Amino acid sequence: MDRTEVNKSSRGASHMTPEEFRRYGKDVIDWIADYYERIESFPVKSQVQPGEIRAALPPNPPQNGESFDAMLQDVEKLILPGITHWQSPNFFGYFPSNNSFPSILGDLLSSGLAVQGMLWATSPACTELETHVLDWLVEMLGLPEKFLSRSTGGGVIQDTASSSSLCALLAARERATNFSSNERGCDGRLVAYTSLQAHSSLEKAVKVAGIGRSNLRLIEVDEDFAMRPDILAARVEDDRKAGRVPFFVCATVGTTSSNAMDPLGPIGETCRKHGLWLHVDAAMAGTAALCPEFRWIQQGIEFADSYCFNPHKWMFTNFDCDCFYVADRAALIKALSVLPEYLRNKATESGAVIDYRDWHIPLGRRFRALKLWFVIRHYGVSGLQFHVRRHVELAQQLASWIAQNPDFELAAPVPLNLVCFRHRGGDAVNQAIMEHLNDSGSLFLTHTRLHDRLTLRLCIGQTRTELCHVEAAWARIREAAGLLRAGKAGTELSG
Amino acid sequence: MDRTEVNKSSRGASHMTPEEFRRYGKDVIDWIADYYERIESFPVKSQVQPGEIRAALPPNPPQNGESFDAMLQDVEKLILPGITHWQSPNFFGYFPSNNSFPSILGDLLSSGLAVQGMLWATSPACTELETHVLDWLVEMLGLPEKFLSRSTGGGVIQDTASSSSLCALLAARERATNFSSNERGCDGRLVAYTSLQAHSSLEKAVKVAGIGRSNLRLIEVDEDFAMRPDILAARVEDDRKAGRVPFFVCATVGTTSSNAMDPLGPIGETCRKHGLWLHVDAAMAGTAALCPEFRWIQQGIEFADSYCFNPHKWMFTNFDCDCFYVADRAALIKALSVLPEYLRNKATESGAVIDYRDWHIPLGRRFRALKLWFVIRHYGVSGLQFHVRRHVELAQQLASWIAQNPDFELAAPVPLNLVCFRHRGGDAVNQAIMEHLNDSGSLFLTHTRLHDRLTLRLCIGQTRTELCHVEAAWARIREAAGLLRAGKAGTELSG
Repeated sequence: MDRTEVNKSSRGASHMTPEEFRRYGKDVIDWIADYYERIESFPVKSQVQPGEIRAALPPNPPQNGESFDAMLQDVEKLILPGITHWQSPNFFGYFPSNNSFPSILGDLLSSGLAVQGMLWATSPACTELETHVLDWLVEMLGLPEKFLSRSTGGGVIQDTASSSSLCALLAARERATNFSSNERGCDGRLVAYTSLQAHSSLEKAVKVAGIGRSNLRLIEVDEDFAMRPDILAARVEDDRKAGRVPFFVCATVGTTSSNAMDPLGPIGETCRKHGLWLHVDAAMAGTAALCPEFRWIQQGIEFADSYCFNPHKWMFTNFDCDCFYVADRAALIKALSVLPEYLRNKATESGAVIDYRDWHIPLGRRFRALKLWFVIRHYGVSGLQFHVRRHVELAQQLASWIAQNPDFELAAPVPLNLVCFRHRGGDAVNQAIMEHLNDSGSLFLTHTRLHDRLTLRLCIGQTRTELCHVEAAWARIREAAGLLRAGKAGTELSG
Repeated sequence: MDRTEVNKSSRGASHMTPEEFRRYGKDVIDWIADYYERIESFPVKSQVQPGEIRAALPPNPPQNGESFDAMLQDVEKLILPGITHWQSPNFFGYFPSNNSFPSILGDLLSSGLAVQGMLWATSPACTELETHVLDWLVEMLGLPEKFLSRSTGGGVIQDTASSSSLCALLAARERATNFSSNERGCDGRLVAYTSLQAHSSLEKAVKVAGIGRSNLRLIEVDEDFAMRPDILAARVEDDRKAGRVPFFVCATVGTTSSNAMDPLGPIGETCRKHGLWLHVDAAMAGTAALCPEFRWIQQGIEFADSYCFNPHKWMFTNFDCDCFYVADRAALIKALSVLPEYLRNKATESGAVIDYRDWHIPLGRRFRALKLWFVIRHYGVSGLQFHVRRHVELAQQLASWIAQNPDFELAAPVPLNLVCFRHRGGDAVNQAIMEHLNDSGSLFLTHTRLHDRLTLRLCIGQTRTELCHVEAAWARIREAAGLLRAGKAGTELSG
């Protein structure tokens, strides 16, 4: 073994030193700053084929340590081509998952401190900052006081709205069965309700929780794709008469398909009458309530037993950060609590603290409140309002252009920042427009089906999306339609 | 409004620029490097009282944006006192949750790129690097080939072992009921098995999944706290005779209490005979299998239907990063899959790609494979082996000192890096020793109960723990016992 080989094989036995970390850390910071400066130079949607990224990676793990420079070069060379650029201002697909520099830095501190916040005692600041910032958000969003930690409720950061829906369903299940489902298992009699337009996570949650998909009623929607409260009321009555046990309703503030707003008030009346748990999923649209003029979306929220929205969608906080609130924290904790000897400690037994491990499925948890705290402090309430208003304004402008164009039509109301529309030429044309645009790399948008017709979705919520990006997107959409009309679908459009 | 106020109120309307991010980002990198250089100057366990951190925070959110310098100063002043320093070399509590600089930098890139990896199409590199690195780990750990993606199985990163246990349980539940529980809900007849010493996450999982705690059999353990396979076999037979439906066994490689190793071979024989799903939870100890001489811990792993271990515990990868493998990915995907219109895409429909959203509870997911890739490449297999061997060696040294001391005794075998021991003076003495040490801030350790006696746990797995730290810990433990014996418990020990 010559000297080079000795050095190579011994490198991995050394930890990276603080001095090396300073150097490489600054390289990574610069790389990220550069990335955002050149982000519009990449095709928004990755152009790789299945298996292409893996094919460029070594088949076997390295026996000896490698240099950090080699790793960072490989990110540039091997990873970047496989990235769909969610942070591009030309990304309009799905719901956004936006980000900001203060959030990245808060998250970096969380990675650096690397504490486990499963119990208050395992890092009090991790728990207390989270409780505190989630209380701030109750005030910022105009949510009911019952969600405050000084009341009977409180908030917790979950990974996703899917997990929040599941936790709400579990707390509801236990409340409805006097906590016997936890003990004896489910019995197939419980019935849950949501709308035909609700997120697929509800279907997943009823399966996970042993309720069964056949016991989830998908309530019909009105012409604006919002849940019909009269039909909900009737279905609940029917189920009760049939000897079933209605126990849970999930209403959506801003459905994924079209941003439809379920009417919380009338839905809540039915829930109150029959003692059903009302969960409100405002994953993306909830952020709009930062602005008083948009708070109508959550009218009736006082009926809610639980609520969630995702700062990791539209509030400049990088994934994962879903804020989940309950009005009765005791029900949630009783549904999810376990206390083995090795987690016992004085602070927990004093009852004076929150142990967040009892508020969600995982035991361990990272210090996610730091990034949320940084975002709120960097922007302030007024700064966040400014950017949300701007996104809504841009979406309204696009909607007005579409409404005025004879070739296109709006496919649903545009209450906030999601525009659902279609070319009047039918499903095949819309499919071709979408594929042409996404394959071109110049922008990215996705689709849904509304009234069984293929519908394009363009959501404006990326941190750096400005008027020029929306104008360019609209020009490209019209251009794609024009190419199609000119019969060039077989060449330019599919090429 | 004077000029200062104008500047303050308009700050939040601006995003942090790339130039500002370069500056503040480097400040944060330096802060983290400084933190690790001075980490031994802090009390390991936070000394704050409940409510103390919150009391120092402003009651209301800021209306206007604040400077980044103010935020970083507050981390130092307001947050640090509330941190229990999991990354201190004097942290010996629970299981470790260790970290490394390459991991922090991989995680930073993930925060910067901020892609959603829910589908292959939403960032192919996020999916393919994950599949690739998890295949590497099959080779690195000597796991069965059936867990490779080119076989019928595959691996996925989950947040925690709790979530992996739940997903394994759900796949098993559906396989056992021919996928009817997803449809009709649970019926209370399914029975799951684990040991009396298994992690509390199993109890949580059976509650969440609608199985019910009364249908989880906690199988008795032998004198080394490992599951008794003969008792498991008998209980399964009994349950079948009683008309119940045994379906799932969770065996533990390294229990949280004492690092006991359940005998996978004999347990697996029972599972195979009765068609039960065998899940193996190796959350911390699994990392040891990097070293061939420790692979005996997973003897019988060929019987496993699923397996997990946590690089975020003992493999220098910061939380969250649990690697979960299944032998039959179709069962897992069928149990967890949902496909709404707005997630449909050509790549998914081609069947040529993995969509990881169907492999766990959440829909969204971050690019966690980057940090794991960086860790494996920085250390190489040989570097990781070096550090794992070192930790085991240190634990064995401590165990030998304890065994030779007349005042102390080992409370369980020490197969790897966890030492369970107690002072011979009884529970109150051990409790007092632990509280004295943890309150002193000089080290941190936790406890469990074994044979109904309070037992101290000292786990050696922190990245920077060296011989000097273990020697100092042992000296302090003996010193605390000496103070107690001198009758100074009321002064020094509780003071």
